[in-house]
Amino acid sequence: MRLSRYFLPTIKENPSEAQIASHRLMLRAGMIRQGAAGIYSWLPLGLRVLKKIENIVREEQNRAGALEVLMPTIQSSELWEESGRYDDYGKEMLRIEDRHGRNMLFGPTNEEMITDIFRREIHSYKDLPKNLYHIQWKFRDEIRPRFGVMRGREFLMKDAYSFDLTPEEGVNSYNAMFVAYLRTFARLGLKAIPMRADTGPIGGDLSHEFLVIAETGESEVFFHKDFEGMESLVDFPADAEGLQAIVNEWTTPYAATEEMHSEDDCPVEGNNLIRGRGIEVGHIFFFGDKYSKPMKASVQGPEGEMLNVQMGSYGVGVSRLVGGIIEACHDENGIVWPEAVAPFKIGLMNLGAKNEECTAFCDVLYAELEEAGIEVLFDDTKDGAGAKFKNMDLIGLPWQVAVGPRGLKNGVVELKNRKTGEKEELTKEALLAKFTA
Amino acid sequence: MRLSRYFLPTIKENPSEAQIASHRLMLRAGMIRQGAAGIYSWLPLGLRVLKKIENIVREEQNRAGALEVLMPTIQSSELWEESGRYDDYGKEMLRIEDRHGRNMLFGPTNEEMITDIFRREIHSYKDLPKNLYHIQWKFRDEIRPRFGVMRGREFLMKDAYSFDLTPEEGVNSYNAMFVAYLRTFARLGLKAIPMRADTGPIGGDLSHEFLVIAETGESEVFFHKDFEGMESLVDFPADAEGLQAIVNEWTTPYAATEEMHSEDDCPVEGNNLIRGRGIEVGHIFFFGDKYSKPMKASVQGPEGEMLNVQMGSYGVGVSRLVGGIIEACHDENGIVWPEAVAPFKIGLMNLGAKNEECTAFCDVLYAELEEAGIEVLFDDTKDGAGAKFKNMDLIGLPWQVAVGPRGLKNGVVELKNRKTGEKEELTKEALLAKFTA
Repeated sequence: MRLSRYFLPTIKENPSEAQIASHRLMLRAGMIRQGAAGIYSWLPLGLRVLKKIENIVREEQNRAGALEVLMPTIQSSELWEESGRYDDYGKEMLRIEDRHGRNMLFGPTNEEMITDIFRREIHSYKDLPKNLYHIQWKFRDEIRPRFGVMRGREFLMKDAYSFDLTPEEGVNSYNAMFVAYLRTFARLGLKAIPMRADTGPIGGDLSHEFLVIAETGESEVFFHKDFEGMESLVDFPADAEGLQAIVNEWTTPYAATEEMHSEDDCPVEGNNLIRGRGIEVGHIFFFGDKYSKPMKASVQGPEGEMLNVQMGSYGVGVSRLVGGIIEACHDENGIVWPEAVAPFKIGLMNLGAKNEECTAFCDVLYAELEEAGIEVLFDDTKDGAGAKFKNMDLIGLPWQVAVGPRGLKNGVVELKNRKTGEKEELTKEALLAKFTA
Repeated sequence: MRLSRYFLPTIKENPSEAQIASHRLMLRAGMIRQGAAGIYSWLPLGLRVLKKIENIVREEQNRAGALEVLMPTIQSSELWEESGRYDDYGKEMLRIEDRHGRNMLFGPTNEEMITDIFRREIHSYKDLPKNLYHIQWKFRDEIRPRFGVMRGREFLMKDAYSFDLTPEEGVNSYNAMFVAYLRTFARLGLKAIPMRADTGPIGGDLSHEFLVIAETGESEVFFHKDFEGMESLVDFPADAEGLQAIVNEWTTPYAATEEMHSEDDCPVEGNNLIRGRGIEVGHIFFFGDKYSKPMKASVQGPEGEMLNVQMGSYGVGVSRLVGGIIEACHDENGIVWPEAVAPFKIGLMNLGAKNEECTAFCDVLYAELEEAGIEVLFDDTKDGAGAKFKNMDLIGLPWQVAVGPRGLKNGVVELKNRKTGEKEELTKEALLAKFTA
């Protein structure tokens, strides 16, 4: 993509309304703009990151055997009255009256709707297990939306719902999502630690939050230092035993958010306990028949008896992750994207945009990189070199390639690794070989 | 995908609530389920089609130089008060009050919001032209939602917005979208005819609707028979002259919807005029400064003067197209998907699910087809052969492969083309060669 044709409105100064790094950097890097409090438009650069995260989340849900559906944003209040949550949910639920005076709402979550779909279509234990997920915009009318996409009102979420015949099989479905989440966050370039969690308004008694450790995290966390050496990009196991083994491994060392932690009861001693800060990026729940019972979602069992299905739900905050990744991956000059979610892999800069030879060289190099299928943002503008470097550092692409008339005299361009800051000079051929190998 | 693990709740009988073919078939093929009047959940089979259409629309927008953004579903009423459309829009707009009593709405379209983004970021003619599009769920509170996804309340739409310095350049942007739409509908397997249209509440004086011809179409259309021989998968031209030439070619023969047609003024005589029925699948508008003037979206021109930008907007009903394609592509037995949007390419049926040898053969064939990257739905259930064939015809995959113990004795499987009904017997090797060539 040529920057001259792109829409990348970067900002030099820190916007006064942003209190945390990710909010500041997303505004400055031209990724988002606020429409109303806690409601954002995603500009081209931000949308590319959002889509990459969404795709990794999707791939890992599919790998774990979940089936993708898409439920609407607007729901009728009737199902929520049936489950008993319509009055409970309070003012965070955006309530709407349609032109015929019917009570509707913008879904904050979908347990009721998916249970309704399930009970209308599935009536036999032979059709279990099932895990249905969707990736859809949700709305929670936060009283004080803040921190950009980290605590917005309209947000993109992946939520999955599992249906099983027995509690044991339900736990197996829970374990599959647990492992899928470990893989998902690892692929996003994050280390997320699962922590035993409160279940809150979702309900049930088995629940884990996944927290990314970042200095700027929203809550204090406590965990055993054993986690530091653990590899979270595990192979997805083929059977229930394999799943359980990974869950056991990851739930054995102590880990707790501040709500669940108590200094008196903490089993970890001295230097083995790490205090840090964390950002919640996923939350999983097993809640048995909490919804299937009031909503009568039952199937016929092997003996002909009717059994309420055992359910769990599993959420990843997809738009929140954009902010979460930036909180974990930035420095004083800007964002430092992990390769898997970077909006482009390479930022190519023409430092001699008024020099014909340099421009011709860049045009050819750009075409060759594109031809090789590499995602390149090509700064072909007439801005000065200083501004171009600053902008590239701000938007945080993993690799920067600077082409200037002086280097070209020696037949070389400069390649910089955004994360390490390491620079090397190399010929165009060596550069192409490096990225197309 | 193995059918035994999939979620495909097909229905044998025609649902009484569905009046048109696409609505009936989408319910029967387990593609959608209604949540509330005019609001649908997309089940796995339906979502696959929706995503394929979305991707083709996206690719052609990108090819035409449009940049993808994503605006939120919920908007503040303020921008609509500025443009003067807040009161005009009537009861079709879903109006919402948030917890602080602020007036919000679920966007039915985005002219105001995109104009606001533009005016905050772009201030010079040097940054023009720009075309920004998004693919997002919209809501129109239809008084009588009906016909399934053809006239739902919550629907997925691609809307693009162009910004230019002069009316001439604005028309060029309009032409680029015109050609992108010809290509888009052709790639979807449809023949869409552009017809001069009323501009309605969007405004302006240059507008075309794209209509797909289908016996079951919602409105009567009149067009010159010359259209029948025209190829709509045109190469996308490199310059303004090339774009204009294609637009001229496609707007020269007479074509009009019933609102625009008058028998007295029709220039086409006798047998040259075809009367048919059409389904609107796209609508494009050039409206100059209708929004940029009240909303003060202006840029500095080459002479330093401030000029209101010239705008157009361009819509494709993505979810509506799922229904539109079915209206154009079905027979008495079910859907007949064009290959480009089919949820799977091949439906593989094991007709001897209780026969070990036949099952083993199917398992291997399924694995080999998957390995080759072909999308296969494998009916591995214990249903009878008649039910399997009926179901496959209903869901309309382009190719059916039936494997039975009798054929296997002769070393062959049966391949059926869903559209033509042609059948042939061939060996596994010949089958694999046919689909992996």
